[in-house]
Amino acid sequence: MTESLPMIDYDSFFSRVARSTQGSAIRKMGVMAVKVPDMISFAPGYPDPAVFAWHEFQQIAQEVLSGADASVLQYGPTRGYRPLLESLVGILSARGIQVAEDNLLITTGSQQGIDLVGRALLDPGDVVLVELPAYTGAIAAFRNTQATLVGVRQEADGIDLDDLETVVGRTRGAGRRVRCLYVVPNFQNPTGLLISLPKRRRLLDLAARLDLLIIEDDPYGALYFEDAASAEDTRPIKADDSDGRVIYLSSFSKTLAPGFRVAWIAAAVPVIDKLDLGKQVADLMTPALDQRIVSEAILRGVYDRQIPILRRCYQQKRTVMREALRRELGDLVSWPEPRGGFFLWVSLPDAVNAEEILPRAVQQRVIYVAGSAFFVDGSGPNTIRLSFSLPSEERIVEGVRRLAPVIRAAAGRG
Amino acid sequence: MTESLPMIDYDSFFSRVARSTQGSAIRKMGVMAVKVPDMISFAPGYPDPAVFAWHEFQQIAQEVLSGADASVLQYGPTRGYRPLLESLVGILSARGIQVAEDNLLITTGSQQGIDLVGRALLDPGDVVLVELPAYTGAIAAFRNTQATLVGVRQEADGIDLDDLETVVGRTRGAGRRVRCLYVVPNFQNPTGLLISLPKRRRLLDLAARLDLLIIEDDPYGALYFEDAASAEDTRPIKADDSDGRVIYLSSFSKTLAPGFRVAWIAAAVPVIDKLDLGKQVADLMTPALDQRIVSEAILRGVYDRQIPILRRCYQQKRTVMREALRRELGDLVSWPEPRGGFFLWVSLPDAVNAEEILPRAVQQRVIYVAGSAFFVDGSGPNTIRLSFSLPSEERIVEGVRRLAPVIRAAAGRG
Repeated sequence: MTESLPMIDYDSFFSRVARSTQGSAIRKMGVMAVKVPDMISFAPGYPDPAVFAWHEFQQIAQEVLSGADASVLQYGPTRGYRPLLESLVGILSARGIQVAEDNLLITTGSQQGIDLVGRALLDPGDVVLVELPAYTGAIAAFRNTQATLVGVRQEADGIDLDDLETVVGRTRGAGRRVRCLYVVPNFQNPTGLLISLPKRRRLLDLAARLDLLIIEDDPYGALYFEDAASAEDTRPIKADDSDGRVIYLSSFSKTLAPGFRVAWIAAAVPVIDKLDLGKQVADLMTPALDQRIVSEAILRGVYDRQIPILRRCYQQKRTVMREALRRELGDLVSWPEPRGGFFLWVSLPDAVNAEEILPRAVQQRVIYVAGSAFFVDGSGPNTIRLSFSLPSEERIVEGVRRLAPVIRAAAGRG
Repeated sequence: MTESLPMIDYDSFFSRVARSTQGSAIRKMGVMAVKVPDMISFAPGYPDPAVFAWHEFQQIAQEVLSGADASVLQYGPTRGYRPLLESLVGILSARGIQVAEDNLLITTGSQQGIDLVGRALLDPGDVVLVELPAYTGAIAAFRNTQATLVGVRQEADGIDLDDLETVVGRTRGAGRRVRCLYVVPNFQNPTGLLISLPKRRRLLDLAARLDLLIIEDDPYGALYFEDAASAEDTRPIKADDSDGRVIYLSSFSKTLAPGFRVAWIAAAVPVIDKLDLGKQVADLMTPALDQRIVSEAILRGVYDRQIPILRRCYQQKRTVMREALRRELGDLVSWPEPRGGFFLWVSLPDAVNAEEILPRAVQQRVIYVAGSAFFVDGSGPNTIRLSFSLPSEERIVEGVRRLAPVIRAAAGRG
């Protein structure tokens, strides 16, 4: 029967978590962007499919779907496809992280990784520390555990360690349990900030002193801009983690393609064993065909060949957006120069409320994410996240041209 | 650094849920089966890859990975790939369920569906009702919400409604909150039982009277045996659910291939909206390529062509296993005749403990799942689940030949 008029009061059946869950601001933007014709979207952090290795993926799919190896479409181990785990040991080693296969778990995208880590570490009422601002997908996952999120300020080279120590002291002083910190050290979402190397070491020392685990999320590390950073600048915190304090997450979503949903976690064996049990419950296994295609793409050198192409692609788009913003808005807006990744984090004049002017931007057929969605303390009303990764260079220029009058008008400089 | 000797006491960091999570007995069997050479496994409910539509999947993958449509490898809507949702409306209609696309959510396998439903409905301390015995993946997911699982007896035509009413009364009488019942009406895992049609109607009425939601899990409904059942016998409870009381789950894992991890939930709009928010947190979206291949397989008639092939394949394997058991063990063992699905649910003589004799079966290079894993009340020590879906007919015969002396010896009839 059609259920257009449900007769049941479902609220009385929902769990406390379900009753309190909110939708993601970014995904709402995505839905809105699709509905308006000729919309230019700077909202979601989508990679550019024009640089996906389509032909190689097609060739690999053709070969692995021959039927010769049934495991390509069969149930498989929760931990992940064995040859992919082996390849990850090598990819991590190149980043300075020395782990064995037992330290690894393949996840269905890093969103699942964050969710599994949150569920394994957080009880209702616990406090988890996040950057101000922080990635909305992590905020949503941690909120779903009924933990309390407390923000730590950032400065030009990433998280403010003095503030971290102050916040932990204050929170524990209030009798709350604080056990972990979530950080995105490389080209943070949404700010694009890079934590400096000396600060990474000091953060690790401080975490040991404060007895915190660090959840290090690194989807963008490989995508530094060669005119502004080097591989050395992106050395993960995990690379210097001698006592297993860091739970490291990374993904192929920004480097091969997000549609595969293949990502991974590297951590101490007792942690991985717990996350594996959580994943059994969550989805049994990451899809087999996707793991196989990604694994073959690595073995055939596709991953290594793609990375420099992607660096150049996104660096060029960053340049185009930066110059368009300077040209159209001059000193009315400012941003920290991103040295990699997908985002420009733009501060509008103090008087401008980014959420309030969003409908006017939509009228101009351009869209962004209002920065307040990323702040767990409700701050940042005059900030916006502009993603330059997906639109073509021409569309970036045109989108900034559409956006500029909206911002100028709101700032009283129309 | 290698973390062979972690210096951190991780237990102090784990959440209550993580500290209490246990591994799945079935997946442990799977790991064991892989390690012994020439093992014949009756343990996991794997479909037979010999009847997967390899050539068609290969052809579809080849076409959709041309690069002409970027959405094949891009982020997409949490709800699912639109044309696949449209196809599901038709597939459900053929099962008697009339829903719109707004009533549907694609999930990364039905395990994710069960997990999302559990998280949306259950608070710690709530009671969820399951069959005795019940599917272990559902047991694990519900336990993960810190709910209490209470069992309801089954009889020859499925769940015992008198016992259901008694259990709800007793549990509520003890001050516990009981809001939902999980059932597998078609060829239940592990028993293979089919709930009769009149009982399905009475169950729906009783659920309304007791104000319970029904979580109806239907992975096997299409796979009835034509010598023992018809499509009409498998009519879902959801088909007669006029007030939105049933949350219906189904999957392509047993019909197309489990490696795609493409499944779905059909429910009232307010329920689907909450589950969608839960899925955003859990993994953002089901992998795009897998959804696309499944969608094309339906549109090209592959799904419709496969179903009768699968029915014949599994019916024949059931016959082979049944006859081998009769030949080798006579009246020492018994089982309810399955009229579809993947399993024979075998009762051994009362004195035999299925878990205790498992190592002896492994010595004979044959493996099963001890039935006690499926009972939330700790009963069923003399039961085993034999899955006939994966091994070839020759291997089924040989496996039963290996298993028979182990059972005969334990029953003192060696």
